[in-house]
Amino acid sequence: MNIVISGMGIIGGSMAKAIKKYTDNYVYGINRSPLPLKKALECGAIDEIGNSDTLEKADMLVLCTYPEASVRFVEENADKINKSCVVIDTCGIKSGICQRLSQLADEYGFTFVGFHPMAGKEKNGFDVSEADLFSGANAIIVPCDAPHSAVDKVASLVKKLRFGNVVFASPEEHDRMIAYTSQIPHVLACAYVFSPNCVKHKGFSGGSYRDVSRVANINASLWSELFIENKEPLVNEIDTLINNLNKIKDEIKKGDREELAKVLHQGKVIKEALGE
Amino acid sequence: MNIVISGMGIIGGSMAKAIKKYTDNYVYGINRSPLPLKKALECGAIDEIGNSDTLEKADMLVLCTYPEASVRFVEENADKINKSCVVIDTCGIKSGICQRLSQLADEYGFTFVGFHPMAGKEKNGFDVSEADLFSGANAIIVPCDAPHSAVDKVASLVKKLRFGNVVFASPEEHDRMIAYTSQIPHVLACAYVFSPNCVKHKGFSGGSYRDVSRVANINASLWSELFIENKEPLVNEIDTLINNLNKIKDEIKKGDREELAKVLHQGKVIKEALGE
Repeated sequence: MNIVISGMGIIGGSMAKAIKKYTDNYVYGINRSPLPLKKALECGAIDEIGNSDTLEKADMLVLCTYPEASVRFVEENADKINKSCVVIDTCGIKSGICQRLSQLADEYGFTFVGFHPMAGKEKNGFDVSEADLFSGANAIIVPCDAPHSAVDKVASLVKKLRFGNVVFASPEEHDRMIAYTSQIPHVLACAYVFSPNCVKHKGFSGGSYRDVSRVANINASLWSELFIENKEPLVNEIDTLINNLNKIKDEIKKGDREELAKVLHQGKVIKEALGE
Repeated sequence: MNIVISGMGIIGGSMAKAIKKYTDNYVYGINRSPLPLKKALECGAIDEIGNSDTLEKADMLVLCTYPEASVRFVEENADKINKSCVVIDTCGIKSGICQRLSQLADEYGFTFVGFHPMAGKEKNGFDVSEADLFSGANAIIVPCDAPHSAVDKVASLVKKLRFGNVVFASPEEHDRMIAYTSQIPHVLACAYVFSPNCVKHKGFSGGSYRDVSRVANINASLWSELFIENKEPLVNEIDTLINNLNKIKDEIKKGDREELAKVLHQGKVIKEALGE
Protein backbone atom coordinates (compact mmCIF):
# COMPACT_ATOMS: atom_id res chain seq x y z
CA MET A 1 0.00 0.00 0.00
CA ASN A 2 0.92 3.64 -0.42
CA ILE A 3 0.26 5.17 3.00
CA VAL A 4 0.20 8.94 3.44
CA ILE A 5 0.64 10.25 6.97
CA SER A 6 -0.45 13.80 7.63
CA GLY A 7 1.26 15.22 10.72
CA MET A 8 4.75 14.20 11.86
CA GLY A 9 4.38 14.64 15.63
CA ILE A 10 4.68 11.89 18.19
CA ILE A 11 1.71 9.93 16.79
CA GLY A 12 2.41 10.45 13.08
CA GLY A 13 6.11 9.83 13.59
CA SER A 14 5.47 6.68 15.59
CA MET A 15 2.93 5.40 13.04
CA ALA A 16 5.46 6.00 10.24
CA LYS A 17 8.28 4.28 12.13
CA ALA A 18 6.05 1.33 13.07
CA ILE A 19 4.79 0.91 9.50
CA LYS A 20 8.36 0.93 8.17
CA LYS A 21 9.55 -1.44 10.89
CA TYR A 22 6.75 -4.00 10.72
CA THR A 23 5.27 -3.81 7.19
CA ASP A 24 6.34 -3.43 3.54
CA ASN A 25 4.16 -0.43 2.84
CA TYR A 26 5.48 2.72 1.18
CA VAL A 27 5.12 5.79 3.43
CA TYR A 28 4.71 9.44 2.45
CA GLY A 29 4.87 12.15 5.10
CA ILE A 30 3.07 15.48 5.03
CA ASN A 31 3.61 18.17 7.63
CA ARG A 32 3.04 21.91 7.98
CA SER A 33 6.66 22.64 8.93
CA PRO A 34 9.54 21.01 6.99
CA LEU A 35 11.94 20.06 9.82
CA PRO A 36 10.12 16.93 11.14
CA LEU A 37 9.77 15.69 7.54
CA LYS A 38 13.50 16.11 6.97
CA LYS A 39 14.24 14.17 10.15
CA ALA A 40 11.67 11.47 9.24
CA LEU A 41 13.25 11.05 5.81
CA GLU A 42 16.75 10.90 7.23
CA CYS A 43 15.94 8.18 9.76
CA GLY A 44 13.84 6.15 7.31
CA ALA A 45 10.50 6.73 9.05
CA ILE A 46 9.10 7.81 5.68
CA ASP A 47 10.14 6.90 2.15
CA GLU A 48 9.24 10.22 0.62
CA ILE A 49 7.95 13.68 1.47
CA GLY A 50 4.43 13.97 0.11
CA ASN A 51 2.08 16.80 -0.76
CA SER A 52 -1.58 17.12 -1.59
CA ASP A 53 -0.98 15.58 -5.06
CA THR A 54 0.32 12.42 -3.38
CA LEU A 55 -3.24 11.80 -2.14
CA GLU A 56 -4.18 10.69 -5.67
CA LYS A 57 -2.12 7.53 -5.29
CA ALA A 58 -2.82 6.93 -1.57
CA ASP A 59 -4.34 3.59 -0.53
CA MET A 60 -4.52 4.86 3.02
CA LEU A 61 -4.38 8.33 4.55
CA VAL A 62 -3.62 8.54 8.26
CA LEU A 63 -4.53 11.86 9.92
CA CYS A 64 -2.16 12.52 12.81
CA THR A 65 -2.90 16.17 13.62
CA TYR A 66 -5.25 17.76 16.19
CA PRO A 67 -8.97 17.08 15.61
CA GLU A 68 -9.88 20.40 13.96
CA ALA A 69 -6.74 20.38 11.84
CA SER A 70 -7.47 16.81 10.73
CA VAL A 71 -10.95 17.74 9.48
CA ARG A 72 -9.59 20.89 7.82
CA PHE A 73 -6.90 18.92 5.99
CA VAL A 74 -9.51 16.59 4.53
CA GLU A 75 -11.87 19.46 3.66
CA GLU A 76 -9.10 21.24 1.79
CA ASN A 77 -7.89 18.15 -0.04
CA ALA A 78 -11.03 16.03 -0.39
CA ASP A 79 -11.15 16.31 -4.19
CA LYS A 80 -7.61 14.92 -4.48
CA ILE A 81 -8.11 11.84 -2.31
CA ASN A 82 -8.22 8.63 -4.35
CA LYS A 83 -11.72 7.09 -4.26
CA SER A 84 -10.29 3.72 -3.20
CA CYS A 85 -8.40 5.36 -0.34
CA VAL A 86 -9.24 4.50 3.30
CA VAL A 87 -8.88 7.61 5.45
CA ILE A 88 -8.32 7.07 9.17
CA ASP A 89 -7.95 9.66 11.92
CA THR A 90 -6.12 9.20 15.21
CA CYS A 91 -8.07 11.72 17.30
CA GLY A 92 -8.86 11.28 20.96
CA ILE A 93 -12.54 12.10 20.47
CA LYS A 94 -14.88 10.72 17.86
CA SER A 95 -18.53 11.86 17.74
CA GLY A 96 -18.12 15.22 15.99
CA ILE A 97 -14.99 14.26 14.04
CA CYS A 98 -16.37 10.98 12.70
CA GLN A 99 -19.61 12.59 11.63
CA ARG A 100 -17.82 15.28 9.64
CA LEU A 101 -15.24 12.95 8.09
CA SER A 102 -17.89 10.33 7.20
CA GLN A 103 -19.89 13.04 5.47
CA LEU A 104 -16.84 14.18 3.47
CA ALA A 105 -16.16 10.53 2.60
CA ASP A 106 -19.72 10.10 1.29
CA GLU A 107 -19.50 13.31 -0.66
CA TYR A 108 -16.14 12.64 -2.33
CA GLY A 109 -16.27 8.86 -2.67
CA PHE A 110 -13.39 7.73 -0.45
CA THR A 111 -13.87 5.69 2.77
CA PHE A 112 -13.50 6.84 6.35
CA VAL A 113 -12.80 4.68 9.42
CA GLY A 114 -12.22 6.17 12.88
CA PHE A 115 -9.17 5.03 14.79
CA HIS A 116 -7.75 5.88 18.23
CA PRO A 117 -4.36 4.52 19.30
CA MET A 118 -4.31 4.52 23.12
CA ALA A 119 -0.71 5.53 23.54
CA GLY A 120 1.23 8.72 24.11
CA LYS A 121 3.86 10.37 26.23
CA GLU A 122 4.17 13.49 28.36
CA LYS A 123 6.32 14.95 25.56
CA ASN A 124 5.31 15.73 22.01
CA GLY A 125 6.84 16.05 18.59
CA PHE A 126 8.65 13.83 16.10
CA ASP A 127 11.76 13.63 18.28
CA VAL A 128 9.99 11.50 20.90
CA SER A 129 8.20 9.25 18.38
CA GLU A 130 9.18 5.60 18.31
CA ALA A 131 8.31 2.48 16.33
CA ASP A 132 7.22 0.62 19.46
CA LEU A 133 5.11 3.35 21.06
CA PHE A 134 2.00 1.27 20.31
CA SER A 135 3.40 -2.06 21.39
CA GLY A 136 0.72 -3.75 23.51
CA ALA A 137 -1.46 -0.61 23.56
CA ASN A 138 -5.21 -0.71 23.04
CA ALA A 139 -6.46 0.22 19.57
CA ILE A 140 -10.02 1.46 19.22
CA ILE A 141 -11.58 1.24 15.79
CA VAL A 142 -14.74 3.24 15.13
CA PRO A 143 -16.14 1.78 11.89
CA CYS A 144 -18.94 4.35 11.44
CA ASP A 145 -20.62 3.15 8.24
CA ALA A 146 -17.51 2.02 6.40
CA PRO A 147 -17.67 -1.27 4.46
CA HIS A 148 -16.28 -4.39 6.13
CA SER A 149 -13.33 -4.59 3.78
CA ALA A 150 -12.09 -1.12 4.79
CA VAL A 151 -12.48 -1.85 8.49
CA ASP A 152 -10.59 -5.13 8.01
CA LYS A 153 -7.80 -3.29 6.23
CA VAL A 154 -7.39 -0.97 9.23
CA ALA A 155 -7.60 -3.81 11.76
CA SER A 156 -5.07 -5.84 9.84
CA LEU A 157 -2.58 -2.92 9.71
CA VAL A 158 -3.10 -2.21 13.41
CA LYS A 159 -2.31 -5.79 14.37
CA LYS A 160 0.90 -5.70 12.33
CA LEU A 161 1.98 -2.57 14.23
CA ARG A 162 1.99 -4.62 17.45
CA PHE A 163 -1.01 -3.06 19.15
CA GLY A 164 -2.48 -5.22 21.94
CA ASN A 165 -6.27 -5.38 22.09
CA VAL A 166 -8.30 -4.15 19.15
CA VAL A 167 -11.84 -3.10 20.11
CA PHE A 168 -14.67 -1.77 17.96
CA ALA A 169 -16.98 0.96 19.22
CA SER A 170 -19.52 3.51 18.10
CA PRO A 171 -18.38 7.14 18.28
CA GLU A 172 -20.62 7.74 21.30
CA GLU A 173 -19.38 4.69 23.18
CA HIS A 174 -15.79 5.68 22.41
CA ASP A 175 -16.28 9.19 23.72
CA ARG A 176 -18.05 8.08 26.89
CA MET A 177 -15.32 5.58 27.73
CA ILE A 178 -12.47 7.95 26.81
CA ALA A 179 -13.94 10.64 29.07
CA TYR A 180 -13.43 8.15 31.88
CA THR A 181 -10.21 6.34 30.98
CA SER A 182 -8.16 9.17 29.51
CA GLN A 183 -9.71 12.61 29.95
CA ILE A 184 -10.51 12.37 33.68
CA PRO A 185 -6.90 11.43 34.57
CA HIS A 186 -5.71 14.53 32.69
CA VAL A 187 -8.28 16.83 34.35
CA LEU A 188 -7.36 15.26 37.66
CA ALA A 189 -3.61 15.58 37.25
CA CYS A 190 -3.99 19.33 36.65
CA ALA A 191 -6.47 19.82 39.51
CA TYR A 192 -4.11 17.85 41.77
CA VAL A 193 -0.99 19.92 41.08
CA PHE A 194 -2.96 23.17 41.57
CA SER A 195 -2.88 22.51 45.34
CA PRO A 196 -0.60 25.00 47.13
CA ASN A 197 1.19 22.02 48.72
CA CYS A 198 2.35 20.68 45.34
CA VAL A 199 5.42 22.92 45.08
CA LYS A 200 6.59 21.67 48.48
CA HIS A 201 6.14 17.96 47.76
CA LYS A 202 9.77 16.97 47.31
CA GLY A 203 11.01 14.87 50.19
CA PHE A 204 7.43 13.99 51.12
CA SER A 205 6.26 12.09 48.08
CA GLY A 206 6.43 8.61 46.63
CA GLY A 207 4.98 6.66 43.76
CA SER A 208 1.39 7.82 44.35
CA TYR A 209 2.22 11.49 43.82
CA ARG A 210 4.26 10.63 40.73
CA ASP A 211 1.49 8.54 39.18
CA VAL A 212 -1.40 10.96 39.74
CA SER A 213 0.56 14.07 38.71
CA ARG A 214 2.36 12.56 35.71
CA VAL A 215 0.10 13.84 32.93
CA ALA A 216 -0.26 17.32 34.47
CA ASN A 217 2.64 18.25 32.21
CA ILE A 218 -0.10 18.68 29.65
CA ASN A 219 -0.29 19.83 26.05
CA ALA A 220 -2.90 22.48 26.91
CA SER A 221 -3.89 23.44 23.37
CA LEU A 222 -4.55 19.82 22.35
CA TRP A 223 -6.41 18.81 25.50
CA SER A 224 -8.53 21.96 25.69
CA GLU A 225 -9.77 21.05 22.21
CA LEU A 226 -10.39 17.42 23.20
CA PHE A 227 -12.18 18.35 26.44
CA ILE A 228 -14.52 20.89 24.85
CA GLU A 229 -15.32 18.56 21.92
CA ASN A 230 -16.34 15.94 24.49
CA LYS A 231 -18.09 18.31 26.88
CA GLU A 232 -21.13 16.31 27.93
CA PRO A 233 -19.58 12.90 28.72
CA LEU A 234 -16.59 14.58 30.40
CA VAL A 235 -18.66 16.91 32.60
CA ASN A 236 -20.74 13.87 33.62
CA GLU A 237 -17.60 11.98 34.64
CA ILE A 238 -16.23 14.96 36.59
CA ASP A 239 -19.55 15.18 38.44
CA THR A 240 -19.43 11.44 39.20
CA LEU A 241 -15.89 11.79 40.50
CA ILE A 242 -16.76 14.79 42.69
CA ASN A 243 -19.76 12.91 44.11
CA ASN A 244 -17.56 9.96 44.97
CA LEU A 245 -14.92 12.20 46.53
CA ASN A 246 -17.64 13.80 48.65
CA LYS A 247 -18.92 10.39 49.67
CA ILE A 248 -15.48 9.41 50.99
CA LYS A 249 -14.97 12.86 52.53
CA ASP A 250 -18.25 12.62 54.43
CA GLU A 251 -17.23 9.27 55.91
CA ILE A 252 -13.85 10.70 56.96
CA LYS A 253 -15.61 13.61 58.64
CA LYS A 254 -18.02 11.29 60.44
CA GLY A 255 -14.96 9.44 61.72
CA ASP A 256 -16.42 5.94 61.95
CA ARG A 257 -13.49 3.75 60.94
CA GLU A 258 -15.61 0.69 60.11
CA GLU A 259 -18.01 2.62 57.89
CA LEU A 260 -15.14 4.34 56.05
CA ALA A 261 -13.36 1.00 55.63
CA LYS A 262 -16.54 -0.44 54.09
CA VAL A 263 -16.63 2.32 51.48
CA LEU A 264 -12.90 2.11 50.68
CA HIS A 265 -13.03 -1.68 50.48
CA GLN A 266 -15.23 -1.33 47.39
CA GLY A 267 -12.12 -0.05 45.59
CA LYS A 268 -10.36 -3.32 46.30
CA VAL A 269 -13.42 -5.32 45.25
CA ILE A 270 -13.67 -3.48 41.92
CA LYS A 271 -9.94 -3.75 41.16
CA GLU A 272 -9.79 -7.43 42.05
CA ALA A 273 -12.90 -8.24 39.99
CA LEU A 274 -11.04 -6.68 37.05
CA GLY A 275 -8.00 -8.83 37.87
CA GLU A 276 -5.90 -5.72 38.53
CA MET B 1 23.10 -2.49 67.73
CA ASN B 2 20.37 -4.86 68.82
CA ILE B 3 17.36 -3.83 66.75
CA VAL B 4 13.91 -5.14 67.63
CA ILE B 5 11.28 -4.93 64.91
CA SER B 6 7.66 -5.19 65.99
CA GLY B 7 5.43 -6.26 63.10
CA MET B 8 6.59 -8.54 60.26
CA GLY B 9 4.43 -7.21 57.43
CA ILE B 10 5.70 -5.57 54.26
CA ILE B 11 7.33 -2.66 56.14
CA GLY B 12 8.75 -4.62 59.08
CA GLY B 13 9.90 -7.43 56.81
CA SER B 14 11.55 -5.01 54.40
CA MET B 15 13.23 -3.10 57.26
CA ALA B 16 14.56 -6.38 58.64
CA LYS B 17 15.83 -7.56 55.26
CA ALA B 18 17.43 -4.17 54.52
CA ILE B 19 19.12 -4.04 57.93
CA LYS B 20 20.54 -7.53 57.46
CA LYS B 21 21.60 -6.78 53.88
CA TYR B 22 23.24 -3.40 54.46
CA THR B 23 24.35 -3.31 58.12
CA ASP B 24 25.91 -5.53 60.80
CA ASN B 25 23.15 -5.04 63.35
CA TYR B 26 21.49 -7.95 65.14
CA VAL B 27 17.75 -8.14 64.43
CA TYR B 28 14.97 -9.54 66.60
CA GLY B 29 11.48 -9.92 65.19
CA ILE B 30 8.22 -9.70 67.14
CA ASN B 31 4.84 -10.43 65.59
CA ARG B 32 1.34 -11.31 66.74
CA SER B 33 1.11 -14.43 64.57
CA PRO B 34 4.05 -16.86 64.39
CA LEU B 35 4.13 -17.68 60.64
CA PRO B 36 5.81 -14.48 59.35
CA LEU B 37 8.43 -14.80 62.11
CA LYS B 38 9.19 -18.36 61.05
CA LYS B 39 9.59 -17.24 57.43
CA ALA B 40 11.73 -14.25 58.47
CA LEU B 41 14.01 -16.50 60.49
CA GLU B 42 14.29 -19.03 57.68
CA CYS B 43 15.30 -16.46 55.07
CA GLY B 44 17.67 -14.62 57.38
CA ALA B 45 15.63 -11.41 57.62
CA ILE B 46 15.89 -11.69 61.41
CA ASP B 47 18.53 -13.32 63.59
CA GLU B 48 16.16 -14.34 66.34
CA ILE B 49 12.50 -14.33 67.33
CA GLY B 50 12.06 -11.82 70.12
CA ASN B 51 9.46 -11.19 72.81
CA SER B 52 8.73 -8.42 75.26
CA ASP B 53 11.75 -9.40 77.37
CA THR B 54 14.02 -8.73 74.39
CA LEU B 55 13.19 -5.05 74.75
CA GLU B 56 15.51 -4.88 77.77
CA LYS B 57 18.54 -5.28 75.51
CA ALA B 58 17.22 -3.29 72.54
CA ASP B 59 19.27 -0.33 71.25
CA MET B 60 16.52 0.43 68.80
CA LEU B 61 12.88 -0.59 68.56
CA VAL B 62 11.18 -0.18 65.19
CA LEU B 63 7.37 -0.18 65.28
CA CYS B 64 6.04 -1.59 62.01
CA THR B 65 2.37 -2.15 62.85
CA TYR B 66 -0.71 0.04 62.27
CA PRO B 67 -0.73 3.34 64.21
CA GLU B 68 -3.04 2.30 67.06
CA ALA B 69 -1.34 -1.06 67.40
CA SER B 70 2.07 0.65 67.54
CA VAL B 71 1.03 2.89 70.42
CA ARG B 72 -0.62 -0.05 72.20
CA PHE B 73 2.52 -2.16 71.89
CA VAL B 74 4.60 0.57 73.54
CA GLU B 75 1.96 1.18 76.22
CA GLU B 76 1.91 -2.49 77.11
CA ASN B 77 5.70 -2.88 77.14
CA ALA B 78 6.96 0.56 78.14
CA ASP B 79 8.41 -0.64 81.46
CA LYS B 80 10.53 -3.24 79.67
CA ILE B 81 12.09 -0.90 77.08
CA ASN B 82 15.76 -0.16 77.82
CA LYS B 83 16.24 3.50 78.82
CA SER B 84 18.99 3.93 76.21
CA CYS B 85 16.71 2.55 73.48
CA VAL B 86 15.62 4.73 70.56
CA VAL B 87 12.05 3.86 69.59
CA ILE B 88 10.95 4.76 66.06
CA ASP B 89 7.57 4.27 64.45
CA THR B 90 6.88 3.89 60.72
CA CYS B 91 3.32 5.22 60.66
CA GLY B 92 1.84 7.20 57.82
CA ILE B 93 0.53 9.91 60.17
CA LYS B 94 2.36 11.65 62.93
CA SER B 95 0.60 14.32 65.03
CA GLY B 96 -1.41 12.12 67.39
CA ILE B 97 1.02 9.18 67.32
CA CYS B 98 4.14 11.26 68.01
CA GLN B 99 2.48 13.08 70.87
CA ARG B 100 1.47 9.84 72.57
CA LEU B 101 4.78 8.07 71.98
CA SER B 102 6.84 11.11 73.07
CA GLN B 103 4.81 11.21 76.26
CA LEU B 104 5.45 7.52 76.93
CA ALA B 105 9.16 8.10 76.21
CA ASP B 106 9.26 10.95 78.73
CA GLU B 107 7.44 8.89 81.29
CA TYR B 108 9.56 5.72 80.95
CA GLY B 109 12.94 7.21 80.08
CA PHE B 110 13.56 5.87 76.57
CA THR B 111 13.76 8.09 73.47
CA PHE B 112 11.23 8.44 70.66
CA VAL B 113 11.87 9.65 67.10
CA GLY B 114 9.15 9.65 64.44
CA PHE B 115 9.96 8.05 61.10
CA HIS B 116 8.00 7.55 57.87
CA PRO B 117 9.46 5.50 55.03
CA MET B 118 7.73 6.65 51.81
CA ALA B 119 7.48 3.26 50.16
CA GLY B 120 4.93 0.51 49.84
CA LYS B 121 3.15 -1.77 47.44
CA GLU B 122 -0.42 -2.62 46.52
CA LYS B 123 0.10 -5.92 48.36
CA ASN B 124 0.81 -6.45 52.03
CA GLY B 125 2.43 -8.97 54.30
CA PHE B 126 5.90 -10.43 54.86
CA ASP B 127 5.79 -12.36 51.57
CA VAL B 128 6.02 -9.17 49.50
CA SER B 129 8.69 -7.53 51.68
CA GLU B 130 12.10 -6.93 50.12
CA ALA B 131 15.47 -5.57 51.17
CA ASP B 132 15.40 -2.91 48.45
CA LEU B 133 11.84 -1.67 48.93
CA PHE B 134 13.26 1.62 50.27
CA SER B 135 15.96 2.04 47.68
CA GLY B 136 15.85 5.70 46.58
CA ALA B 137 12.61 6.36 48.52
CA ASN B 138 12.07 9.46 50.62
CA ALA B 139 12.56 9.09 54.37
CA ILE B 140 10.83 11.57 56.66
CA ILE B 141 12.22 11.93 60.15
CA VAL B 142 10.07 13.67 62.76
CA PRO B 143 12.47 14.45 65.61
CA CYS B 144 9.82 15.72 68.06
CA ASP B 145 11.91 16.63 71.10
CA ALA B 146 14.45 13.84 70.89
CA PRO B 147 18.12 14.68 71.51
CA HIS B 148 20.37 15.22 68.49
CA SER B 149 22.31 12.02 69.08
CA ALA B 150 19.14 9.89 68.80
CA VAL B 151 17.99 11.68 65.64
CA ASP B 152 21.46 11.18 64.14
CA LYS B 153 21.32 7.49 64.97
CA VAL B 154 18.06 7.16 63.02
CA ALA B 155 19.31 9.26 60.10
CA SER B 156 22.51 7.26 59.91
CA LEU B 157 20.64 3.92 59.85
CA VAL B 158 18.22 5.25 57.23
CA LYS B 159 21.05 6.27 54.92
CA LYS B 160 22.64 2.83 55.19
CA LEU B 161 19.32 1.25 54.16
CA ARG B 162 19.63 3.05 50.79
CA PHE B 163 16.82 5.56 51.21
CA GLY B 164 17.08 8.56 48.86
CA ASN B 165 16.27 11.95 50.38
CA VAL B 166 16.08 12.28 54.13
CA VAL B 167 13.92 15.22 55.27
CA PHE B 168 13.10 16.47 58.76
CA ALA B 169 9.66 17.79 59.62
CA SER B 170 7.38 18.61 62.51
CA PRO B 171 4.43 16.24 63.02
CA GLU B 172 2.04 18.89 61.70
CA GLU B 173 4.08 19.62 58.58
CA HIS B 174 4.42 15.89 57.95
CA ASP B 175 0.67 15.33 58.21
CA ARG B 176 -0.20 18.28 56.01
CA MET B 177 2.20 17.16 53.27
CA ILE B 178 1.23 13.50 53.52
CA ALA B 179 -2.45 14.40 53.16
CA TYR B 180 -1.46 15.82 49.78
CA THR B 181 1.25 13.48 48.50
CA SER B 182 -0.04 10.15 49.71
CA GLN B 183 -3.56 10.24 51.14
CA ILE B 184 -5.22 12.21 48.31
CA PRO B 185 -3.99 9.75 45.65
CA HIS B 186 -5.54 6.91 47.67
CA VAL B 187 -8.86 8.73 48.18
CA LEU B 188 -8.80 9.61 44.50
CA ALA B 189 -8.04 6.11 43.24
CA CYS B 190 -11.09 4.78 45.10
CA ALA B 191 -13.36 7.63 44.00
CA TYR B 192 -12.16 7.07 40.42
CA VAL B 193 -12.91 3.35 40.24
CA PHE B 194 -16.38 3.92 41.75
CA SER B 195 -17.50 5.31 38.35
CA PRO B 196 -19.94 2.94 36.63
CA ASN B 197 -17.68 3.09 33.56
CA CYS B 198 -14.74 1.53 35.41
CA VAL B 199 -15.86 -2.07 34.96
CA LYS B 200 -16.06 -1.50 31.18
CA HIS B 201 -12.63 0.10 30.81
CA LYS B 202 -10.73 -2.77 29.22
CA GLY B 203 -9.92 -2.08 25.60
CA PHE B 204 -10.39 1.65 26.16
CA SER B 205 -7.66 2.43 28.63
CA GLY B 206 -3.97 3.17 28.67
CA GLY B 207 -1.33 4.29 31.12
CA SER B 208 -3.43 7.12 32.60
CA TYR B 209 -6.15 4.80 33.82
CA ARG B 210 -3.55 2.39 35.20
CA ASP B 211 -1.68 5.12 37.10
CA VAL B 212 -4.69 6.82 38.70
CA SER B 213 -6.46 3.58 39.65
CA ARG B 214 -3.38 1.66 40.86
CA VAL B 215 -3.75 2.24 44.60
CA ALA B 216 -7.53 1.66 44.59
CA ASN B 217 -6.63 -1.94 45.48
CA ILE B 218 -6.46 -0.55 48.97
CA ASN B 219 -5.85 -1.97 52.45
CA ALA B 220 -9.12 -0.50 53.74
CA SER B 221 -8.57 -1.14 57.44
CA LEU B 222 -5.15 0.55 57.45
CA TRP B 223 -6.14 3.55 55.34
CA SER B 224 -9.42 4.19 57.14
CA GLU B 225 -7.34 4.52 60.31
CA LEU B 226 -4.80 6.83 58.62
CA PHE B 227 -7.49 9.01 57.02
CA ILE B 228 -9.49 9.51 60.21
CA GLU B 229 -6.34 10.19 62.26
CA ASN B 230 -5.49 12.92 59.74
CA LYS B 231 -9.01 14.24 59.29
CA GLU B 232 -8.47 18.00 59.14
CA PRO B 233 -5.53 18.26 56.70
CA LEU B 234 -7.06 15.55 54.51
CA VAL B 235 -10.54 17.09 54.35
CA ASN B 236 -8.86 20.41 53.45
CA GLU B 237 -6.98 18.78 50.61
CA ILE B 238 -10.10 17.02 49.31
CA ASP B 239 -11.90 20.39 49.32
CA THR B 240 -9.00 22.01 47.46
CA LEU B 241 -9.08 19.23 44.89
CA ILE B 242 -12.84 19.47 44.41
CA ASN B 243 -12.56 23.26 43.98
CA ASN B 244 -9.89 22.83 41.33
CA LEU B 245 -11.94 20.14 39.56
CA ASN B 246 -14.89 22.52 39.53
CA LYS B 247 -12.71 25.31 38.16
CA ILE B 248 -11.67 23.14 35.21
CA LYS B 249 -15.23 21.82 34.78
CA ASP B 250 -16.62 25.35 34.61
CA GLU B 251 -14.16 26.27 31.86
CA ILE B 252 -15.08 23.13 29.91
CA LYS B 253 -18.77 24.03 30.22
CA LYS B 254 -18.14 27.60 29.06
CA GLY B 255 -16.42 26.10 26.04
CA ASP B 256 -13.83 28.83 25.42
CA ARG B 257 -10.82 26.87 24.23
CA GLU B 258 -8.29 29.62 24.91
CA GLU B 259 -9.49 30.22 28.46
CA LEU B 260 -9.49 26.49 29.23
CA ALA B 261 -6.01 26.12 27.73
CA LYS B 262 -4.78 28.94 30.00
CA VAL B 263 -6.02 27.10 33.09
CA LEU B 264 -4.62 23.71 31.99
CA HIS B 265 -1.30 25.25 31.01
CA GLN B 266 -0.70 26.03 34.69
CA GLY B 267 -0.30 22.27 35.19
CA LYS B 268 2.61 22.26 32.75
CA VAL B 269 4.12 25.37 34.38
CA ILE B 270 3.99 23.78 37.85
CA LYS B 271 5.40 20.43 36.72
CA GLU B 272 8.20 22.05 34.73
CA ALA B 273 9.14 24.38 37.60
CA LEU B 274 9.54 21.23 39.70
CA GLY B 275 11.70 19.73 36.98
CA GLU B 276 9.23 16.87 36.43
